[in-house]
Amino acid sequence: MAHHRFHKMHGLGNDFVIFDCREHDLSLSAEQVRALADRHLGIGCDQLIVMRPAPASSTADMAMQIFNHDGSEVSACGNATRCVVALAGRDVLIETGAGLLRGTLGDGAVTIDMGLPGLEWDALPLAYPMDTVHLPVGWEDLTDPAAVSMGNPHVIFFVDDGAAVDLERLGPLIEHDPLFPERVNVNIAHMADDGLHLRVWERGAGLTLACGTGACATAVAAIRRKLVSGPVPVHLPGGTLTIDWQPGSNVSMTGPTTHVFTGEIDF
Amino acid sequence: MAHHRFHKMHGLGNDFVIFDCREHDLSLSAEQVRALADRHLGIGCDQLIVMRPAPASSTADMAMQIFNHDGSEVSACGNATRCVVALAGRDVLIETGAGLLRGTLGDGAVTIDMGLPGLEWDALPLAYPMDTVHLPVGWEDLTDPAAVSMGNPHVIFFVDDGAAVDLERLGPLIEHDPLFPERVNVNIAHMADDGLHLRVWERGAGLTLACGTGACATAVAAIRRKLVSGPVPVHLPGGTLTIDWQPGSNVSMTGPTTHVFTGEIDF
Repeated sequence: MAHHRFHKMHGLGNDFVIFDCREHDLSLSAEQVRALADRHLGIGCDQLIVMRPAPASSTADMAMQIFNHDGSEVSACGNATRCVVALAGRDVLIETGAGLLRGTLGDGAVTIDMGLPGLEWDALPLAYPMDTVHLPVGWEDLTDPAAVSMGNPHVIFFVDDGAAVDLERLGPLIEHDPLFPERVNVNIAHMADDGLHLRVWERGAGLTLACGTGACATAVAAIRRKLVSGPVPVHLPGGTLTIDWQPGSNVSMTGPTTHVFTGEIDF
Repeated sequence: MAHHRFHKMHGLGNDFVIFDCREHDLSLSAEQVRALADRHLGIGCDQLIVMRPAPASSTADMAMQIFNHDGSEVSACGNATRCVVALAGRDVLIETGAGLLRGTLGDGAVTIDMGLPGLEWDALPLAYPMDTVHLPVGWEDLTDPAAVSMGNPHVIFFVDDGAAVDLERLGPLIEHDPLFPERVNVNIAHMADDGLHLRVWERGAGLTLACGTGACATAVAAIRRKLVSGPVPVHLPGGTLTIDWQPGSNVSMTGPTTHVFTGEIDF
């Protein structure tokens, strides 16, 4: 039993318990992660984050580990990375399970370099070669999607009325279509004067308040179709991200973070 | 904006944010309660508790206020009262919206004097006079219930296999039956060698992990029917309470509390 300090933060309602272990060690079993993430019996969060020193071989300033509330480790989470940069209080290069991520601290917001999008059919992957700007496929009224990989696979439908799409029914149907051998995240977007409005069915998680990689994939698809030019505001149920991309370059994602409270717990 | 310390505790999985304001003032709007109780954007809890000094006119050691996560104030919560006694660290007489409650600190558990049960038909109330030990009514296979008021109305069915009852479907049906003008909490109990096993459909809240007044009402009904004599362990999905009662006397409820963490928040 030891005493631990932690931070509770969220990015667009995606909430995190964060242990800053840059100057001491902390090892967590999957069982401990589940207990801490439990919203009734523990602290409660979507993901649990551990900030660590960078490995000696790395050029990074620090490393981060991300655990889902089921105790499994995941490689990347844009909302969590913004929170970690805000906690670090300066621009940082972070070693993650998905490689190096650069975070830049702005005026009340954090920008993350999300790397290059995957634009080829085998980057998602799709089951067979296909134009990823206009996939010649459809599910009921949802037709003519684009496809983009942001490390995870996304399919994007541009529609006139995003709220009218029954995403709880169609999301799982499309997610599990054999066209997507590793399943897929389903993005429903519509253009408005103030930017893109987006709802996301996340692979394995369902409807969420804010999917950072979905916002990136959707902005990239909209820019490829010349519907917009970056930077573009993407409005999600949990809030707004601003995505910038030029063909051939990395995607950048800018968004807010909220520090809710600090806590102390023994385990 | 001020800095506030708080405790996060739970009793049988019913979880609370507790502000100890016995030595300073804190007023909370319904909007602030909702923000603090939000599990993604705030601290997260079933109920928010404020410990206060006793009013000058009272013989109590302290007072407590209980807010639901929708911001409304409620008069009593057995699980919360146990947590407050554990935080106080000694036996206390507490002024609550439901009157004075005495809490006794035992060995790893807290005992609350829950007062006299209401055994008459108009105490619940029922719509018309009826024997409350055996109500001559039924809903499908659920027949021959007992009725007890613990400040709130309870109907109790003793069955052979509690898990087999479709309480999500029958609970709301019984809750809203015109026999119960102020609606009712629905308790499904079965006797086993190790005590009573109980599932509760709570009026306005649905299935919960642990309903303290339901455990009390069910033990009283079982003792009235001479199925058991007190003290009787009542096993709920969230854990076990021990209920004691003799005809003519107050009900006592003994159960565990868990202190999860302390926190600091600005609002």
